[in-house]
Amino acid sequence: MWTFDNPPTKLLQERYHFTPTREWLDHVRLSSVRLNDGGSGSFVSPHGLLLTNHHVARGQLQKNSTAEKDFIKDGFYAATPGEEMKSPDLEVNVLVSMENVTGRVMGAIKKGASDQDALSARKAITAQIERESTQSTGFRSDVVSLYQGGEYWLYRYKKYTDVRLVFAPEQQIAFFGGDPDNFTYPRHDLDMAIFRVYENGKPIESRNYLKWNAKGAAENELVFVSGHPGSTQRQDTMAQLGRERDVFEPTILSLLKNRIDTLKAYSALGPEQARQSTTLIFGLENSQKAYLGRLRGLLDKNLINKKQKDENAFRALVMAKPEWRTSYGNAWDDIARAENKATPMVKPQIFHRVDSQLFNTALSLVQYVAEVKKPDGERLRGFHESQLESLRYRLLSPAPVYPGLEEARMAGGLEESRRQLGANDPFLMAVLNGRTPAQTAKDLSAGTKLADPNVRKALLEGGKAAIDASTDPMIVAARKVDPLSREMTKWMEDNVESVETQAGEKIGKARFLVYGKGAYPDATFTLRLSYGAATGYPMNGTKAPYKTTFYGLYDRASSFDFTGPFYLPSRYMEGRSKLDLSTPLDFVSSTDIIGGNSGSPVINRNAELVGLIFDGNIESLAGDFAYEGETNRAVAVHSAAMIEALRKLYNAGTLADELQGTGQAGSH
Amino acid sequence: MWTFDNPPTKLLQERYHFTPTREWLDHVRLSSVRLNDGGSGSFVSPHGLLLTNHHVARGQLQKNSTAEKDFIKDGFYAATPGEEMKSPDLEVNVLVSMENVTGRVMGAIKKGASDQDALSARKAITAQIERESTQSTGFRSDVVSLYQGGEYWLYRYKKYTDVRLVFAPEQQIAFFGGDPDNFTYPRHDLDMAIFRVYENGKPIESRNYLKWNAKGAAENELVFVSGHPGSTQRQDTMAQLGRERDVFEPTILSLLKNRIDTLKAYSALGPEQARQSTTLIFGLENSQKAYLGRLRGLLDKNLINKKQKDENAFRALVMAKPEWRTSYGNAWDDIARAENKATPMVKPQIFHRVDSQLFNTALSLVQYVAEVKKPDGERLRGFHESQLESLRYRLLSPAPVYPGLEEARMAGGLEESRRQLGANDPFLMAVLNGRTPAQTAKDLSAGTKLADPNVRKALLEGGKAAIDASTDPMIVAARKVDPLSREMTKWMEDNVESVETQAGEKIGKARFLVYGKGAYPDATFTLRLSYGAATGYPMNGTKAPYKTTFYGLYDRASSFDFTGPFYLPSRYMEGRSKLDLSTPLDFVSSTDIIGGNSGSPVINRNAELVGLIFDGNIESLAGDFAYEGETNRAVAVHSAAMIEALRKLYNAGTLADELQGTGQAGSH
Repeated sequence: MWTFDNPPTKLLQERYHFTPTREWLDHVRLSSVRLNDGGSGSFVSPHGLLLTNHHVARGQLQKNSTAEKDFIKDGFYAATPGEEMKSPDLEVNVLVSMENVTGRVMGAIKKGASDQDALSARKAITAQIERESTQSTGFRSDVVSLYQGGEYWLYRYKKYTDVRLVFAPEQQIAFFGGDPDNFTYPRHDLDMAIFRVYENGKPIESRNYLKWNAKGAAENELVFVSGHPGSTQRQDTMAQLGRERDVFEPTILSLLKNRIDTLKAYSALGPEQARQSTTLIFGLENSQKAYLGRLRGLLDKNLINKKQKDENAFRALVMAKPEWRTSYGNAWDDIARAENKATPMVKPQIFHRVDSQLFNTALSLVQYVAEVKKPDGERLRGFHESQLESLRYRLLSPAPVYPGLEEARMAGGLEESRRQLGANDPFLMAVLNGRTPAQTAKDLSAGTKLADPNVRKALLEGGKAAIDASTDPMIVAARKVDPLSREMTKWMEDNVESVETQAGEKIGKARFLVYGKGAYPDATFTLRLSYGAATGYPMNGTKAPYKTTFYGLYDRASSFDFTGPFYLPSRYMEGRSKLDLSTPLDFVSSTDIIGGNSGSPVINRNAELVGLIFDGNIESLAGDFAYEGETNRAVAVHSAAMIEALRKLYNAGTLADELQGTGQAGSH
Repeated sequence: MWTFDNPPTKLLQERYHFTPTREWLDHVRLSSVRLNDGGSGSFVSPHGLLLTNHHVARGQLQKNSTAEKDFIKDGFYAATPGEEMKSPDLEVNVLVSMENVTGRVMGAIKKGASDQDALSARKAITAQIERESTQSTGFRSDVVSLYQGGEYWLYRYKKYTDVRLVFAPEQQIAFFGGDPDNFTYPRHDLDMAIFRVYENGKPIESRNYLKWNAKGAAENELVFVSGHPGSTQRQDTMAQLGRERDVFEPTILSLLKNRIDTLKAYSALGPEQARQSTTLIFGLENSQKAYLGRLRGLLDKNLINKKQKDENAFRALVMAKPEWRTSYGNAWDDIARAENKATPMVKPQIFHRVDSQLFNTALSLVQYVAEVKKPDGERLRGFHESQLESLRYRLLSPAPVYPGLEEARMAGGLEESRRQLGANDPFLMAVLNGRTPAQTAKDLSAGTKLADPNVRKALLEGGKAAIDASTDPMIVAARKVDPLSREMTKWMEDNVESVETQAGEKIGKARFLVYGKGAYPDATFTLRLSYGAATGYPMNGTKAPYKTTFYGLYDRASSFDFTGPFYLPSRYMEGRSKLDLSTPLDFVSSTDIIGGNSGSPVINRNAELVGLIFDGNIESLAGDFAYEGETNRAVAVHSAAMIEALRKLYNAGTLADELQGTGQAGSH
């Protein structure tokens, strides 16, 4: 998970006799995109075609679907430009520049400042850098903390919001095998979707796209993944991992279980309810399986013993040198104390939530009108000047809202919060206001007008006065929750975040001094380059192959008699004889990825697209805490499978031609 | 693994609403066979067709093959009766009666006899019962110890030695996936072979055969396995399991590794050497993987803790009742002491071997001529009157012997024995007689005439005088080893076996008293009935399906680019379009099996054949010590796959007709 300013050139040369040039790196970076729905993607044609996963595109498919037309179930293909379908609230970012601003950020913190003062100063300078950059360049500008604060970088993004769907297959083939097969391998999914990015009403034209290589990667071939891993905790101290394992993970797993149970009950009410809730359930089950895998990793004695050994060795080296000891030696104990302090707050933090799309919108509106009045550097996270445009885009989304779904989620979530926190919890008292969870959910979902984007717009534009005057029950509840939420944020900043940021920075600096910069920083949903080989691994007593084929898809479906999550869309049942079943379908590589990498391109040393990352295997789930190369594998759709399916099953030869740079591409 | 006299009728009725009748049990028993090559099988036509695994038939295929005609590689099919191929030394046993002789065996042991005297008395009465039975009935007669000596039964077998091969597929499809896929699932093997059993030159005719059901078992359907599990150690004490884990398994694994390395080096010398050694390597790698799985089971804390808890609870119940305590309470400590005594003997026991077919024949000849002169009850195990016919059949086998292979095995094995035991070990001094292992191997393999069955016959018939006069170097070496071997046997009998037999009997009796006879005895390579359901299991983060299909075979081959053990015979490459690829190929059931069950029929409640056991999954390997139903699965070839392949790929419609009872079957 290397940053593009510091690729592992030495390792690559040693292991693969390949050194990426600056042009290679720039081209790959500018061909890679981040999506605000939480995934990655890449440009794959000179006319703005953007390849990502079905499960990344899924939110937009859900928002464009209705009771009559279900794009999740049936898929979508725009055979002509005019049919391409606008996404309600998708934003695409391309990393156009990176600037090291470590000196400026660190220079803003006074020597000897308290942890709290340092945090404020850091927030202020960060907001200032971002604001100045946005104003001077027009680009979305983020200051990113890397190496636990060992470095700060200003990342500038070109932003696109006119993103139209060109192709998505049926959900059942994109996610064949469902929750059981999720995070496993061998796998048989066509988890792909293709958008086209527009600017000023026209498809963008660019040289920065990845050429398609339908041969894919040979076994053991060097491949790269360029994408946006969301977050890892590989540099966390043992104290942090301990709280993660003992407190945080079990608590979040209770929350997820409750939400899944709630939604499954709602889904069982009828086909329309099932349609409305399917993407939420998918996301929650995905999280549940991921958290269970993380927890398994944290409970793995080998993994934990190794991390403890590494930490002991690192600390011993720091303590052995008097000036290091003085400057950095206390960082681990500081973190341990902060973790102890944070422990009792985990439950309230996690259960002080109202599981409702509109409630969260309401809270954002209430906070928005207050925050924008403050100096940029003093605002809550997410409300800085440079972030407002994307925030407004999201808050004013025209995506549909389902009151029945809202009510069910709120009722189930508030019940669980009450079970977990007791009825006297101040947050619950504020939200429930003497009512039962069910009644509260009913009142809020029935009474609110926030489903209408114009109502939200009026409140946003009306500012604090409009918010204060609103009698919308969601706004009323959000106004009550707001001070409690701010109080919690402040407490966490003062007692935990400020301490751990300072201590983390010390550890980050110490790591540079002790080990040099021969490592990559933890993932931060910023662009990274991973490398590895297309290669199988030992599995369950035998070998997992480096690739699967369409044969395997039909085998797995037949093996389960086409039941449960193993049925095939009719297109696949009827179209079988059109396919060359030996075509590779999915494949694995030892590239290091994590959630957020979904949709990332897999490329070869010629920067050609050979695959599309969509998952990790079950062994990869401990990757949040450590990368273990023997069995950790990234799972990708094979470039050949996408072409085979488009041409033979979807009558999408035109699209395949554009991807492959053959035929009459360029007609757009 | 229930004996046929005590099937789990209550459990079956409760769980599956099925109670097998006496007729059902008799029919299944008489349709089941045991093979002296170490596997199981069943009659599947009224004209003596016997279905078993390719890997059980493999020894006979190997012995019938030559440098010119390799039946292992190419398979075999006798389209007409005249082409059916005689097996050199295969013996088939059918269990025709079972008689409880516990009273007679136990009555022969004097009250208060020492462990050693009890063992002698037990051996004498056992030999007497077997001899009397053989003489009066003509059947092969074995006294079997069950429930650790809690019961003794006389099992009588009808014996067949004219067993002719009708069909065997190519080794590569029988064992597709090779060592990696061995003991795993999902699986894609056609591990089948079909013999026909003759008597007096004609195929046997019998109503006791299993009707073929080509539909197989539905998911979750009740199925049974009737076969001969070789051995389990589920009732072993913790002391026995401890020595198994710490001493025996690591030592046997060193032996296996050495033998595999030796044979692979020999195999690499050329295609003929590879052909000669392939079946030995297969068997050794199979054992190696099985022992590694056993060891993993013994190192599994959950399994061991559970067994410890069970033993503690059992012992506590025994100790709580004064008369039980007096009669049985000391058994566990007696065994623990014997185990401690046995520990230093494990290495000599395992490495006092000469890895040579002819040396072992020579040793048997040397011992044969001495033993037959003694009273039956005092002879070495294996030389009792009732066993001599089968022993002579084996000793006089016309199967080929390869001097180069013999030399390589002996040299490699003796080298390893010297490494393990040191040059001053008395066994090694006797065998090497001052020579190097390589020279010894050369002398013995080059000088011996025992490859000729007539030479063996002359020695056998010449008796002790012929053996004493022989200058054949194998016989000379065997004469030197014989006294050492007897000494070791006697030491083990006096110090370990006698103690553990007595103590085991006590534990067996105590278990009846404490828990009743609601359990089955440990496996003893005698006929058992297992029940379970055709059902998948949780695997590697997802679900393993209950069956696989021919699609999966082509997927797995393609996934590995047809390399290594994943290539397909040309018949399968070229015949793909003839197959219905959705035909089930293999399937799993929760039936409880172990090595020796290979070739067992899987039947439904109508006693119809739905599958052919050929393996267990990786999770089943700990089954030697405990059966764990959530993931332990028996792997079988599906009845539909065998018919599909015979009809569509092998032009063996006549054979398929006979199996299915259709067409002109009965022409034999």
